[in-house]
Amino acid sequence: MRTAFYISDSTAITAEAFGNALLSLFPEEFNHVTIPFVETVKKAQQINKQIEKSFQDSGMRPLVFHTILNAQVKEIISSGAGISYNFLDQFVAPLEKVLGVRAKPEKHRTHSIHEQTYAIRIQAVNFAMANDDGVNLKNYGEADIILIGVSRSGKTPTSLYLALQYGIKTANYPFTEDDMVDVLKLPNALRAYKEKLFGLTIDAKLLHQIRSERRANSRYASLKQCQMELKETENLYRREKIPFINSTRFSIEEISTKILAETGLQRRKY
Amino acid sequence: MRTAFYISDSTAITAEAFGNALLSLFPEEFNHVTIPFVETVKKAQQINKQIEKSFQDSGMRPLVFHTILNAQVKEIISSGAGISYNFLDQFVAPLEKVLGVRAKPEKHRTHSIHEQTYAIRIQAVNFAMANDDGVNLKNYGEADIILIGVSRSGKTPTSLYLALQYGIKTANYPFTEDDMVDVLKLPNALRAYKEKLFGLTIDAKLLHQIRSERRANSRYASLKQCQMELKETENLYRREKIPFINSTRFSIEEISTKILAETGLQRRKY
Repeated sequence: MRTAFYISDSTAITAEAFGNALLSLFPEEFNHVTIPFVETVKKAQQINKQIEKSFQDSGMRPLVFHTILNAQVKEIISSGAGISYNFLDQFVAPLEKVLGVRAKPEKHRTHSIHEQTYAIRIQAVNFAMANDDGVNLKNYGEADIILIGVSRSGKTPTSLYLALQYGIKTANYPFTEDDMVDVLKLPNALRAYKEKLFGLTIDAKLLHQIRSERRANSRYASLKQCQMELKETENLYRREKIPFINSTRFSIEEISTKILAETGLQRRKY
Repeated sequence: MRTAFYISDSTAITAEAFGNALLSLFPEEFNHVTIPFVETVKKAQQINKQIEKSFQDSGMRPLVFHTILNAQVKEIISSGAGISYNFLDQFVAPLEKVLGVRAKPEKHRTHSIHEQTYAIRIQAVNFAMANDDGVNLKNYGEADIILIGVSRSGKTPTSLYLALQYGIKTANYPFTEDDMVDVLKLPNALRAYKEKLFGLTIDAKLLHQIRSERRANSRYASLKQCQMELKETENLYRREKIPFINSTRFSIEEISTKILAETGLQRRKY
């Protein structure tokens, strides 16, 4: 199998995103190797040996996706046994022309604490942790958004993603069976923040499967119970005109970006 | 100010990473606008009006970073008022030549539930949530890594990042003052999993500042207390030969990727 290397003198997160997006267009399997913080000539020479070995072992020239700023290190990696792809270089000259300024590359420019929004993202993570699963209603005034839905409909991972990646202060609140003795009504604690509410729902069969992995053969996990809870919840969303999304076929990345698009909440990430 | 648009028929996460990495090389400020899920001709035409308006309002041609697969939608966005950058197109032809196969673009190929490791990442998030802050020692056999350190040294955000982005089952355990009545010793619950331990530390002044925001003028937040706890903790790391990192000048992205590089833990993310 051919190996794809993702190399950077920083985290290599951008090199991975770049290489992975490209390779995902091809109906091939690759062996993925990420090597961050290649900051010295010595380290670069070691990496080149690793690339050379991968070439010898597999008989296929490795692909090397990199975003290295240090000129010496870049030169060494570019002249190795792999096929080198540096997407920054290709676009910098055209952008310089358009912007009328020269690029001023600085190391650790992305994904570092020097990002303007770094502190905001960490505060949002702390907020999401402190306001997970309805534990802390008193902070809802501070929330940017409050995700609501039944147990295991995707609230917690989505809350964490919105906080970590986009700096959105996200709380989440679970509807439980106890809320549904009669018809599910919007709890007063939530009604006060109705404009911040966003609902999640999920197909009953998938919810049944997810809950069964957690508590097999329980009432909680039964298909009938899942159907009842979801029906009550979706009725509530429609009755109260709360925007909602069915998470069944979507990843947390997709759910999160759809929520931002629908609510108009602004990313805090640059 | 010039506007940078990040547009995709999927989440636009790749378009953002690509555009943001490029723009971060320039000593300029930009207005950032992300528009995901542009899947129809009608939506594309609306977006073009928005781009046109941004051009008229600012007098500066917007930059449009996109990764659109639908040919019609791509054509519309590419022919709009902005300057169009599609990094996929530039690299696909050379890669086809190297790989000897044609690209087979499919929509929602990255950041979707179709990623092979999606379920693993969600399980890791659930694990990190259930094993935050030393609440659940009985699961440590299942952990890939156990982060240790004093309160507010960065354990929780790092745990969540490792789980969410890389599918690493991460637990974390806090050392508290109670552990340090005499000399801080490695708790027995941790010693059994010593090869999984990774330490965090932080400069005392920053810790003092972070804790003061939480509980001003408390003993917990005092510089003296922070210095004592950190000294005990670092002594423990050295004595027990536990690898550790000082998080003071690093983002959670940098801490997480450094931990992976140092431990050799494999990303589960493709």
